Amino acid sequence: MRTVDLIEKKVQNEELTTEEISFLIKGFLDSTVPDYQMAAMQMAIVFNGMSDREATDLTMEMMHSGDIVDLSDLKGVKVDKHSTGGVGDTTTLVVAPLIAACGGTVAKMSGRGLGHTGGTIDKLESIPGMQVEIPLDKFKQIVNHIGVSVIGQSGDLDPADKKMYALRDVTATVRSIPLIASSIMSKKLAAGADAIVLDVKVGSGAFMQTLDQARALATLMVEIGKRVGRRVVAIITDMNQPLGMAVGNALEVREAVELLSGRIPKGDPLYEVCMLLGTHMLLLSDLASDADDARQKLETALESGAGLKKLQQMVTAQGGDASYLCMQRIDELCKVREIRPIYPKTEGYLSAINAERIGTAAQMLGAGRATKADRIDPAVGLVMKKRLGDAVHIDEPLCMMYINDPAKADAAIEEFYSAFMISEQKPAHCPMVYDVIGE
Amino acid sequence: MRTVDLIEKKVQNEELTTEEISFLIKGFLDSTVPDYQMAAMQMAIVFNGMSDREATDLTMEMMHSGDIVDLSDLKGVKVDKHSTGGVGDTTTLVVAPLIAACGGTVAKMSGRGLGHTGGTIDKLESIPGMQVEIPLDKFKQIVNHIGVSVIGQSGDLDPADKKMYALRDVTATVRSIPLIASSIMSKKLAAGADAIVLDVKVGSGAFMQTLDQARALATLMVEIGKRVGRRVVAIITDMNQPLGMAVGNALEVREAVELLSGRIPKGDPLYEVCMLLGTHMLLLSDLASDADDARQKLETALESGAGLKKLQQMVTAQGGDASYLCMQRIDELCKVREIRPIYPKTEGYLSAINAERIGTAAQMLGAGRATKADRIDPAVGLVMKKRLGDAVHIDEPLCMMYINDPAKADAAIEEFYSAFMISEQKPAHCPMVYDVIGE
Repeated sequence: MRTVDLIEKKVQNEELTTEEISFLIKGFLDSTVPDYQMAAMQMAIVFNGMSDREATDLTMEMMHSGDIVDLSDLKGVKVDKHSTGGVGDTTTLVVAPLIAACGGTVAKMSGRGLGHTGGTIDKLESIPGMQVEIPLDKFKQIVNHIGVSVIGQSGDLDPADKKMYALRDVTATVRSIPLIASSIMSKKLAAGADAIVLDVKVGSGAFMQTLDQARALATLMVEIGKRVGRRVVAIITDMNQPLGMAVGNALEVREAVELLSGRIPKGDPLYEVCMLLGTHMLLLSDLASDADDARQKLETALESGAGLKKLQQMVTAQGGDASYLCMQRIDELCKVREIRPIYPKTEGYLSAINAERIGTAAQMLGAGRATKADRIDPAVGLVMKKRLGDAVHIDEPLCMMYINDPAKADAAIEEFYSAFMISEQKPAHCPMVYDVIGE
Repeated sequence: MRTVDLIEKKVQNEELTTEEISFLIKGFLDSTVPDYQMAAMQMAIVFNGMSDREATDLTMEMMHSGDIVDLSDLKGVKVDKHSTGGVGDTTTLVVAPLIAACGGTVAKMSGRGLGHTGGTIDKLESIPGMQVEIPLDKFKQIVNHIGVSVIGQSGDLDPADKKMYALRDVTATVRSIPLIASSIMSKKLAAGADAIVLDVKVGSGAFMQTLDQARALATLMVEIGKRVGRRVVAIITDMNQPLGMAVGNALEVREAVELLSGRIPKGDPLYEVCMLLGTHMLLLSDLASDADDARQKLETALESGAGLKKLQQMVTAQGGDASYLCMQRIDELCKVREIRPIYPKTEGYLSAINAERIGTAAQMLGAGRATKADRIDPAVGLVMKKRLGDAVHIDEPLCMMYINDPAKADAAIEEFYSAFMISEQKPAHCPMVYDVIGE
């Protein structure tokens, strides 16, 4: 088998066989398929796509390229969630403990943030003492005991994805639906979950800029799950503005604690997306008879404080100081040298937000990494005060910026301002959830 | 400037600027643009193409990547020809001396064969003593004295093309019209010609499989020539069968000598394509008032023996033994252990030929290289006895195979048989020349 012939097949829009995909991925990992041939193949896939069968084969080959986490000795249905990356999306910190409080099992491996999107692992590390690198047996013990644990990727999980993604990142081949789907699904499957709820973001802060693209990605991931015998549901949600109001690590932990403390009302976007994710996670876990039942159980867990308690228990089990995780003390994690209100320059209605730029502004303050080597400042970031469609006045701040290094503030503020369009007309309402695909 | 952003631009089907193309090619040559990024860019160009302006900028950047041959001290219009590669195409050995005999100036650098196509330099080397690596000043002396010299590429001509082609060859990005056009034109322009006649082949033995593709390639190369101030004409000719009857190195020299000795009649495809190429070369050299005048001059040069004499003079000047180049002695160059007739297995009409496979069969006998390191046997190859549309009988050979190594014959014969379709119906006539583009 010659790699150049396989690339030519894809250029001619023919389907690659299971054996050919296996040859490519194994060869790429052992460098008998050099970077330049894989780059050409990935670009051919950007243009000609893959069939569902090819994408499934690619997913399985990537999944089997490294360690596979065996969660079979854990009780119950192991349910995972994954978001395709957004700004101000702190749903994991809310939903994972809520599912555990409802009797579910969440043994979750999360990632770090890179670029404009945040990462759950970075957020958790803003809690003093919190350990996210935990041996697998300890991780499983915590899950068996509490029902939930969230750690960083352990072991040599999906090395094919790491190598392929690093190449895609520098060859402009990131935006390919089958390559994104197989990257996500191979990692999730290698992490051992029985059931997965996916949150596919669409809009200015997401990889998927149109609803059609988002729907295609969601449909493909659900199909891959079906073909490999896992239960998968995908929801498609809006990322034309940050999901929650907080963008930053401790700031997002605070928002999660506020939500789990009943301080965020129903109808709020973060609240509603958490409930929708949780509903499908409970359904896939066979812990609710229908969506209404699931929602009822989640609200009870929230209102009773059982969800917050699970979060505290998990943090304690992972070495963190859970005493911060209450309304009385949570502000202590968000202490910065200056909290600066940022006012609009004109009046009118907030008619468009570039969520990616909001994320980038927070990153520039120190909340995220431009490169993997950058250190994160856990307390900095911003808290939005306005949402799309809100009226804005020059004496009402658009956001509060949490600043520790004033030298970084000017560029971050400039980036922040560039994220808004203010117009005289109130814009049309933007839905929060576009679609649910699967099951 | 970041390479990944330039690749993304091309993925988005936006035009690259002159500066961006320069950055890419310079960076590729000094390896600051790694192979994998260039492979991704080339694949994006396979799918999204290039504007005429981009292709011209690419051509100029490649042309300037190495030495440029200065022919300005040679008298007259320096006219070159180039074929996109075919089987049994020995036109250079006929046309170059004929143009010199008509008063033209042909200072030509030619290539070696690779794969199924032959190379003029390999053919010339089948003449004992013939030197094709000659210092530039000696080369120019010969041209000034005789009017024609054909040598191999000298110096560091177009290193960008060599590096890009090597990468395209292993990444299935050969078949891109702007990449083919810039590869050909950058080499021809670096070789110093004022005027160029291109022979774009179309059919089973050519890169361009359809007339539309061939026309697009021809049109682009003529346009590039126009944009850089050179006179360029492209003819589009048929490569659905070998052009001449001989396929092999000395065998093709013999056919050229036969033609220049008046032994090949008007109407024969090789004869007619030589006349058409020569007509446009004389017109671009301002040595004929119109096409009829040009053809008249070429026929006179041929019939008088002046063309053959020029070939003999050139070979003598380059150290070769020209005494072989006459009908009395030419067979001595084609001496092999066995000349085997290959008979058809069925009767009917020759309805289709895969010219590439004919070339490959000759290569397998030793007439060509599978890899650059292979040595060529100058005498072997095959001489066709039938053309498309001819009636075939089982007692009339399809070809005569010139065999030195019987161990290679079986596989070559099998490849040869696989190149034919014989049917009961006489096929429709296939034109020899499809179009002339430019001037």
